[in-house]
Amino acid sequence: MAIPPNVNPSAFNAALSAWRAAVGPEWVFTSEEDVALYRDAYSIFWGEPEERLASAAVAPATLEQVQAVVRTANQHRIPLYTISTGRNLAYGGSAPVYSGSVVLDLKRMNRVLEVNERNAYALVEPGVSYFDLYDAITRAGVDLWIDPPDPGWGSVVGNALDGGAGWTASPFRDHFGSHCGMEVVLADGEVVRTGMGALPDSKSWQHNRWGYGPWVDGLFRQSNFAVVTKMGFYLMPRPEALFTANVTSERDADIVPMLDVLNLLENMHQVNGSTQIFGGGFARPGGGRAPAWTIQVPIYGPENVVRAQMQFAKSKFTAIPGVTFTEGELLRTPLTQEQLARVRQVNFGIPNLSTFAQLGRSPANLDPAGGHIGFSPIVPRTGESLLEFKAFYRENLAKLSGGENLGILGPVYMTCWDRTLVCLIMFPIGRDKTHNAKIRRAFEGWVKLAAERGWAEYRAPTVYQDLIARTYSYNNNSLLRLRETIKDAVDPNGILSPGRYGVWPKHLRKA
Amino acid sequence: MAIPPNVNPSAFNAALSAWRAAVGPEWVFTSEEDVALYRDAYSIFWGEPEERLASAAVAPATLEQVQAVVRTANQHRIPLYTISTGRNLAYGGSAPVYSGSVVLDLKRMNRVLEVNERNAYALVEPGVSYFDLYDAITRAGVDLWIDPPDPGWGSVVGNALDGGAGWTASPFRDHFGSHCGMEVVLADGEVVRTGMGALPDSKSWQHNRWGYGPWVDGLFRQSNFAVVTKMGFYLMPRPEALFTANVTSERDADIVPMLDVLNLLENMHQVNGSTQIFGGGFARPGGGRAPAWTIQVPIYGPENVVRAQMQFAKSKFTAIPGVTFTEGELLRTPLTQEQLARVRQVNFGIPNLSTFAQLGRSPANLDPAGGHIGFSPIVPRTGESLLEFKAFYRENLAKLSGGENLGILGPVYMTCWDRTLVCLIMFPIGRDKTHNAKIRRAFEGWVKLAAERGWAEYRAPTVYQDLIARTYSYNNNSLLRLRETIKDAVDPNGILSPGRYGVWPKHLRKA
Repeated sequence: MAIPPNVNPSAFNAALSAWRAAVGPEWVFTSEEDVALYRDAYSIFWGEPEERLASAAVAPATLEQVQAVVRTANQHRIPLYTISTGRNLAYGGSAPVYSGSVVLDLKRMNRVLEVNERNAYALVEPGVSYFDLYDAITRAGVDLWIDPPDPGWGSVVGNALDGGAGWTASPFRDHFGSHCGMEVVLADGEVVRTGMGALPDSKSWQHNRWGYGPWVDGLFRQSNFAVVTKMGFYLMPRPEALFTANVTSERDADIVPMLDVLNLLENMHQVNGSTQIFGGGFARPGGGRAPAWTIQVPIYGPENVVRAQMQFAKSKFTAIPGVTFTEGELLRTPLTQEQLARVRQVNFGIPNLSTFAQLGRSPANLDPAGGHIGFSPIVPRTGESLLEFKAFYRENLAKLSGGENLGILGPVYMTCWDRTLVCLIMFPIGRDKTHNAKIRRAFEGWVKLAAERGWAEYRAPTVYQDLIARTYSYNNNSLLRLRETIKDAVDPNGILSPGRYGVWPKHLRKA
Repeated sequence: MAIPPNVNPSAFNAALSAWRAAVGPEWVFTSEEDVALYRDAYSIFWGEPEERLASAAVAPATLEQVQAVVRTANQHRIPLYTISTGRNLAYGGSAPVYSGSVVLDLKRMNRVLEVNERNAYALVEPGVSYFDLYDAITRAGVDLWIDPPDPGWGSVVGNALDGGAGWTASPFRDHFGSHCGMEVVLADGEVVRTGMGALPDSKSWQHNRWGYGPWVDGLFRQSNFAVVTKMGFYLMPRPEALFTANVTSERDADIVPMLDVLNLLENMHQVNGSTQIFGGGFARPGGGRAPAWTIQVPIYGPENVVRAQMQFAKSKFTAIPGVTFTEGELLRTPLTQEQLARVRQVNFGIPNLSTFAQLGRSPANLDPAGGHIGFSPIVPRTGESLLEFKAFYRENLAKLSGGENLGILGPVYMTCWDRTLVCLIMFPIGRDKTHNAKIRRAFEGWVKLAAERGWAEYRAPTVYQDLIARTYSYNNNSLLRLRETIKDAVDPNGILSPGRYGVWPKHLRKA
């Protein structure tokens, strides 16, 4: 049996006993086979000494059980690593940042506590997957959409806490940004409800996110300050229609006015879907020479409104000489079976795993069931920045990967969130150590070179969370130091997910 | 000269000397006349022993001066109270929560650091008023709107930090919610930049709010954890048009389906203006019998789009039997001089003081230049809740104010933010002690009775910040206790705005 670092065996045994009493012996996992299930199936260090591994796992089913587990860990100073469903594969999955941590697995807390159609929200536990929430809404016959990301088996709470985004419309696509109200368990076992939830018998917990006084919810994003046990989410009333256009140009420089128009349309909230930019040699599924730039412009809403918005978008884009604006099919919801079979279902609020499977099947991927990590810096939302990124990527390929483009998307693929542009290059990873080492070398190099330009990642695999945190170093890492100060105050024994997103407790902090 | 409590005179003198050296002697105020200017002109305790008063004031002009002032205060343990422009009259204005605090007046930090048209944002210092930002945008000839609240002289940063809202369109109306990136000075003088600002030479500080890792910005809302010295705000590209409709019904019970429709339209983001509900005997400016309910439905956007959205809204509202839907004039921007003279300019992004002056002139107000405090609980966004609130207000008038309605708006006036409903009753206050005492008695009673129903305030005058904080008491005040833990960690000497929004430092905390 593995033991967490710096924990003595008798203390660990005492903790295991207490956990067994709290959650039932069948929900405390210590055998090698059981614990192996918590490995990150696509760790970029798979099978190597640097792979992060759990020592054990414990799976409470209720808030009270979470409190009991955390209190025991705090008493014996045992590092826990909280996962919701643990499906963020290649970004850590269910494996901890700090090897030897005990996984606090919340998969059994899978209750959809409320789906409210009139006020369009849901309140869920961390073990609820997108599939679960979709099923609950469908069963209830409620006319609301969820906003699924690519992997439908992921946790709604976990994805939001990881800073994930989905494929329907803004503002719902920003999963953390569209939550409303949390319940969390602190390191000492205390339960806190945020926003209006702090009012006893509150009737507006999922109506108003801010509540009264300092807003603490942000602290629990990409973080280790508490264990989130409930979270409310705004849901999108089913839109009548989705209308998509493609905007293309043959000329590289046209991306400058094209992106200015896209910014205007998104900042005016006239285009609300997941806009994407494909540029510079991106391999098109249909083959053939791709235009220099393609922007996808999806608009959700009532049919007469999306038609008007498309007309407005068209007038703005076609004012740019040389730009082609092609309206696609207007799809009314709910879709017919025929339509469902040919669309990306996530764009219609239906969770699935198809994109996931597609990526696994890329020819560039050495392992057909492999995962990927994204080099995905946030760059300014201007055409000049895209052109700079494109040149930057080409210029540095030789230096970082012997001239070989290791990405399966790119060189220039951008995904836009409200106001944000992410340049996304996906590196396939699998179980081939030589391949993984090559990807690691390249990834680390890209991160460093990007940071020198003022660009940085918005998320990171667990093994790279420190690397990325160090790029956010303004004023001698003052933001990180503030987070450390808060960490030491709210979790003085440093038991909750040590190291997550670069925040280590005092006793594990490097000088 | 007044001296802060528990500070010895020689320490205070040493601090004053250090501040004079740091900011210039003319920007440290200690004389009775100068300090009197920091009184809250509409304190509900004006001239009474409970009125909160400053001991002195210091007005730095730069970030470095703020750091120096804060370091000195921290060294000598002198309580500061930070204000931006100090114009939140009757909610504290420029007077501190903790009497004897030295006002840290940021009015001289009034630079508009950037206005970016292509990405539609501004970066401002705390002393920038809505007038200042409007002027800077107008001078720059940039086609962006600000979102002014009623008092145009208020600080853009201060209003956002206070949880304020304005009068144009969502999401810009939620001032804290539409900020992007902060710079703050901690109690030890350290400077932290949040979001992408933590990246040295960041080029996307005002593009992406979340950045990487735990999001700390929320901590600085309605708070005292740091001094905010810069803040970015998303701005709204000028919409082509505003189209407003009035929806009315003669029947009380119709508010249930009417509000359901309004919720649907706002949750679908098809109606984006500042919707308002007037109900049950609200005095109409034009006189005559008012309908049971009137909902104002303003829509901003391109002309063809707002026409389509209005058609959609009309189809939904007119499906309710007995409801009248009346389209108003469609106003194209920029307005003509004739139009400007007859509209509420704040609805068109133009700051002014007209609403402020109007309130001052209400016949119910004993002092024509008086202020007001709002009893403004957040209630669930359902018609049932509105009917309950209306009955609740009528039932309890006798108990709380001898049957007299002290409010100048109401009994039922609701203002809607994205997903949130606030029932707003405005009590006029002035300098008549008997009148103010009557208002205080009523306000305190309403807060208590509302909390028993699960309704609570989203903001509070300084003198009532503890009272309201105590209503958010779930699990033995666990949210407040978490905030106190953070306060003690980030400001161990408790020098920054002690008591703000109910958060007191350890040495001033009641047992």
